[in-house]
Amino acid sequence: MIGKQRWAIPEGYIPAGSTGPAPEMTSHETICILNASERDADVEITLYFSDRDPVGPYRLTVRAERTEHVQFNDLDDPEEVPRGTGFASVIESDVPIVCQHTRLDSRQAENALLSTMAYAGDS
Amino acid sequence: MIGKQRWAIPEGYIPAGSTGPAPEMTSHETICILNASERDADVEITLYFSDRDPVGPYRLTVRAERTEHVQFNDLDDPEEVPRGTGFASVIESDVPIVCQHTRLDSRQAENALLSTMAYAGDS
Amino acid sequence: MIGKQRWAIPEGYIPAGSTGPAPEMTSHETICILNASERDADVEITLYFSDRDPVGPYRLTVRAERTEHVQFNDLDDPEEVPRGTGFASVIESDVPIVCQHTRLDSRQAENALLSTMAYAGDS
Amino acid sequence: MIGKQRWAIPEGYIPAGSTGPAPEMTSHETICILNASERDADVEITLYFSDRDPVGPYRLTVRAERTEHVQFNDLDDPEEVPRGTGFASVIESDVPIVCQHTRLDSRQAENALLSTMAYAGDS
Repeated sequence: MIGKQRWAIPEGYIPAGSTGPAPEMTSHETICILNASERDADVEITLYFSDRDPVGPYRLTVRAERTEHVQFNDLDDPEEVPRGTGFASVIESDVPIVCQHTRLDSRQAENALLSTMAYAGDS
Repeated sequence: MIGKQRWAIPEGYIPAGSTGPAPEMTSHETICILNASERDADVEITLYFSDRDPVGPYRLTVRAERTEHVQFNDLDDPEEVPRGTGFASVIESDVPIVCQHTRLDSRQAENALLSTMAYAGDS
Repeated sequence: MIGKQRWAIPEGYIPAGSTGPAPEMTSHETICILNASERDADVEITLYFSDRDPVGPYRLTVRAERTEHVQFNDLDDPEEVPRGTGFASVIESDVPIVCQHTRLDSRQAENALLSTMAYAGDS
Repeated sequence: MIGKQRWAIPEGYIPAGSTGPAPEMTSHETICILNASERDADVEITLYFSDRDPVGPYRLTVRAERTEHVQFNDLDDPEEVPRGTGFASVIESDVPIVCQHTRLDSRQAENALLSTMAYAGDS
């Protein structure tokens, strides 16, 4: 078993909508979550903004010994993630997980433009 | 609550001014700061150079449960951040925060060129 | 001696095969492993997926005071790493090592597209 | 004071020499070192390879409250860093420092291609 139950990613951004196909439609802001434990992980994501209250939790399950690549632009409950504005995220799980922040660019066959391990809290 | 009160980013660079629009005018050296706590964070940034004494503190507030994307080229008190020279930064806060270093390139609809979590001190 | 015995990388991807040369054939998903200790490291890599059981261990040795840049598309025992699907990895060693996740793009003379230190477990 | 006395960077690469100017002559493999302490830091860098014994130490000083951006292709004592081959590095200091690994591409006015905080050892 490896990981922590609380993670934070201060940087997040989904470009605003566009009539053109590129590059706005091809960028994917992603949290890659690994649950290497033997129990399913109930995960809650809370989003933070500069000018309004946090939104969430967004709930999802990462099954035991599985990984999920969660795209922010797929999240829609309790509401869609706003486009064209910066946000931060906190990820909480009831079992240890590992979180990595990656921005993919599908123009390059899923090559990524950036990636960093999320920040792991102490608890 | 997640985070630490002291963070460091050894790498920093703002390109020198240019008469042309790109790429010099489109690169944004940024600290993304998340304050997930319930208290406003008084933040102080100190800049370090290779050939002169540190400059700072630059002061700002990140409100409770908010995130701020701070661009180094917007800092101007006590003085502007010099262009065309490398610098490092230390970020100190009176409540726990999380800091991520990102270089944005607005030519790509806010896609970033690089990103890494800052280094979190022990205290 | 520096490092830990357990590391995790939630993000991984090898593009699907292609009849054309670029960019599919030029991207290299890599774990850079440093063994700065005075003993050879027996390393086991386990891969995690979203929709099936983990695969592994893949076994390799990183000799004492040596570094190895392990490419996922070279791993073939117990089976090849599937193309065109996301995966995560856990790296375990009997001596402390340090692991960095890098995606190389040989179109740029081995420049990398992204790199992040892997997550180091406590044990 | 912030930092640790031992750091590791498993990934490193300086492209082989070329008669052409780009991109081989424009990529800079760099360690950004911050010494935020009030004492000068005596720093030793040791390089690790896949097929031969470590080389070093390379010695340098990062003065108190200063930062240095050290380029691997400037290191030449005890010997030049070989081109066209992967290497890893361990950085040791007698006072706490913070180390970040960055690959710069001067074709883009010092924009970087990748950056990650180095791995901080416990001691």
